Amino acid sequence: MVNIKRLDSRAADFDARLKALLAFESAQDEGIEATVAAILADVKARGDVAVVDYTNRFDRLAVAGMAALELPQAELRAALDGLPAERRAALETAAARIRTFHEKQKADGWTYTEADGTVLGQMVTPLDRVGLYVPGGKAAYPSSVLMNAIPAKVAGVKELIMVVPTPGGEKNALVLAAAALAGVDRVFTIGGAQAVAALAFGTASVPQVDKIVGPGNAYVACAKRRVFGIVGIDMVAGPSEILVIADGSTDPDWVAMDLFSQAEHDELAQSILISPDAAYLDKVAASIEKLLPTMPRAEVIRTALENRGALIAVADMDDACAIANRVAPEHLELSLVDADPWVAKLHHAGAIFIGPYTSESLGDYCAGPNHVLPTSGSARFSSPLGVYDFQKRTSLIKVSRAGAQTLGRIASTLAGGEGLPAHAKSAEYRLD
Amino acid sequence: MVNIKRLDSRAADFDARLKALLAFESAQDEGIEATVAAILADVKARGDVAVVDYTNRFDRLAVAGMAALELPQAELRAALDGLPAERRAALETAAARIRTFHEKQKADGWTYTEADGTVLGQMVTPLDRVGLYVPGGKAAYPSSVLMNAIPAKVAGVKELIMVVPTPGGEKNALVLAAAALAGVDRVFTIGGAQAVAALAFGTASVPQVDKIVGPGNAYVACAKRRVFGIVGIDMVAGPSEILVIADGSTDPDWVAMDLFSQAEHDELAQSILISPDAAYLDKVAASIEKLLPTMPRAEVIRTALENRGALIAVADMDDACAIANRVAPEHLELSLVDADPWVAKLHHAGAIFIGPYTSESLGDYCAGPNHVLPTSGSARFSSPLGVYDFQKRTSLIKVSRAGAQTLGRIASTLAGGEGLPAHAKSAEYRLD
Repeated sequence: MVNIKRLDSRAADFDARLKALLAFESAQDEGIEATVAAILADVKARGDVAVVDYTNRFDRLAVAGMAALELPQAELRAALDGLPAERRAALETAAARIRTFHEKQKADGWTYTEADGTVLGQMVTPLDRVGLYVPGGKAAYPSSVLMNAIPAKVAGVKELIMVVPTPGGEKNALVLAAAALAGVDRVFTIGGAQAVAALAFGTASVPQVDKIVGPGNAYVACAKRRVFGIVGIDMVAGPSEILVIADGSTDPDWVAMDLFSQAEHDELAQSILISPDAAYLDKVAASIEKLLPTMPRAEVIRTALENRGALIAVADMDDACAIANRVAPEHLELSLVDADPWVAKLHHAGAIFIGPYTSESLGDYCAGPNHVLPTSGSARFSSPLGVYDFQKRTSLIKVSRAGAQTLGRIASTLAGGEGLPAHAKSAEYRLD
Repeated sequence: MVNIKRLDSRAADFDARLKALLAFESAQDEGIEATVAAILADVKARGDVAVVDYTNRFDRLAVAGMAALELPQAELRAALDGLPAERRAALETAAARIRTFHEKQKADGWTYTEADGTVLGQMVTPLDRVGLYVPGGKAAYPSSVLMNAIPAKVAGVKELIMVVPTPGGEKNALVLAAAALAGVDRVFTIGGAQAVAALAFGTASVPQVDKIVGPGNAYVACAKRRVFGIVGIDMVAGPSEILVIADGSTDPDWVAMDLFSQAEHDELAQSILISPDAAYLDKVAASIEKLLPTMPRAEVIRTALENRGALIAVADMDDACAIANRVAPEHLELSLVDADPWVAKLHHAGAIFIGPYTSESLGDYCAGPNHVLPTSGSARFSSPLGVYDFQKRTSLIKVSRAGAQTLGRIASTLAGGEGLPAHAKSAEYRLD
């Protein structure tokens, strides 16, 4: 028996129960904070020597210097060439589809000229150099390499530097193959806070980057937060979530498996099903009971479903959409006969998977859109990882002599009101 | 005698001196951290009561409840109506120009359909509710209200809530007038960490927002950093900077005043002039000597110029551009006879002010582009505040039955490689 919570939006205590269900706070661990602060300071001061020390200690290696911690391009290429044909083809198709989708995100600059000859506009340029963190060990996902690296390359980032720890010297061939496919420029086999520090501050061997992206454990997340401002960072991700809205028309086994596909990530992952059809919720619950024993990661799935999952009965589809907007889920699946009309009512989600054939897993790997999505309700204010995260804008202002006459008087007046006389004077100098 | 540093890019110690000139680290103050953490926790727990307590204490007020800390729209409108005609006209023209520029930044969604009927795309939606922090007292800038509020409203933000402390009960009529012009929806006269907490967590009176923008003191900056993740925040700004590249053709008084206009902000502001014409640097230095005694804020300007300013001689314009790219300044002024050809060589700057008539102050107030710009070299990886900061994207994925056949096989293969069997199964269910 899987004890997944059952909620009803018409119950008096629904708001409180939904709030409790969604509550998740990433506790700051003072021990991690102190350890990371020390590593950052040490790498900043001692550079390569410190990085090598930490890498030998934490990854159980015995290298003499940083040279031994950089992989040549030939090794990435060899990993790609060594893949079984089917896996290589799958990776190549996924990469091509991700590239096609992200090329449509590329922004261009623009200018316009006013009647007096003043030109205003916006220049768009890529970041020069980006660091991509890839976890080692069991959470090493080649799909994640593609999803982070391809948008950066599409944006025009000149140098993309990947760091990936190799605990005990173990390399992940699929990850290296994905790096080759995505066009990663350099790979260092370092990880943890020491890798984040090397990328943020630069060392003799590791060039300083402008932004660091990619997932990592609590130490990596803490290090990224601490170097934010010196370099840019992507979002610090919380546990993964799926919210499925179903009208009862989809095979309940499909929906149960979609809930499992989120829950199998880890015990904190969140899987929620909403339906106006209460009988359908029972059917999916039965499918969960039936299918769970067949899953290799059954215990992880059970823990996630029982602690953070829910089946929610609602009055109607409008009610379902309103709840989805409150949750602002990372993944929102619409398993509906006629899903299209509902999309416009959904304002907050990382990605919307429309119709019964669009399982979240298709989007995770190969549909094209990014699988790095805002979690923990942050879809209320943030976006999927995209090309826009690797481009930046510069305002362009070219005021003509005629324009300086009108704008100068306005600026002078407003600067006077703000008590900034040099601002006023600087504008007044340009008056004829 | 103003002791502004003189550097030469051809000197052996130039790199080290430039690095020292640019070095700025915002020290974390443990006392501020602890105070802010306590205020955040208290407001989260006690809501309005805590906000009223802190406001009465820190702003020397004696109000009974939050109702006394909200300003009615009529009061904003009255502030606007009470402005002298010239100032009102200046503010209105500035607002209209800012609106026109930012309307060009508004992004639209898009979709495309593949041969097998699969639809992919990106939906763009505004944030629902945004909080705008406006400092009280001497640094209360109406221009800053326009620059933060107008992009949010152009993006389509439904509710824009301004907080502005009124120490000793003193209100700033220009700030309230700007709020009326910009379409701010609600104004609470609260400030400090307690205002940030109220916006981030929500209270009975202050609605929870999705993002908090706007400048503030060290307590406000610390509070924004701490609530980041629960809500979005804009950049935490460092001291303001200007870098002028001059070829010697502009009246040196103009350039001296442009350097002053940055330096008058505060003692940490940074003003740098670069020229291939060494004799011109001497002329600007002479203008600085001559003009400084005429400035009301002469001592602030002197301190900033002596501690953080520099006049840099370079070999040629290419050299000047290379240094500008290393600095990645907030404001970059090109005081050149023929500035246009150099713009494409400049990759990193918040805003570029092109030609001798484009004083930075015109951009600060009324040219149209935003004056909230990346500082401390963060133009390497971030952008001016814009409409894009108040919009977010949602990926749209609608896989057809035919599409699920090809994509499902790829997803299944890759999920197998990553050891995620429920992901694989969920894709396989969709195979015919």
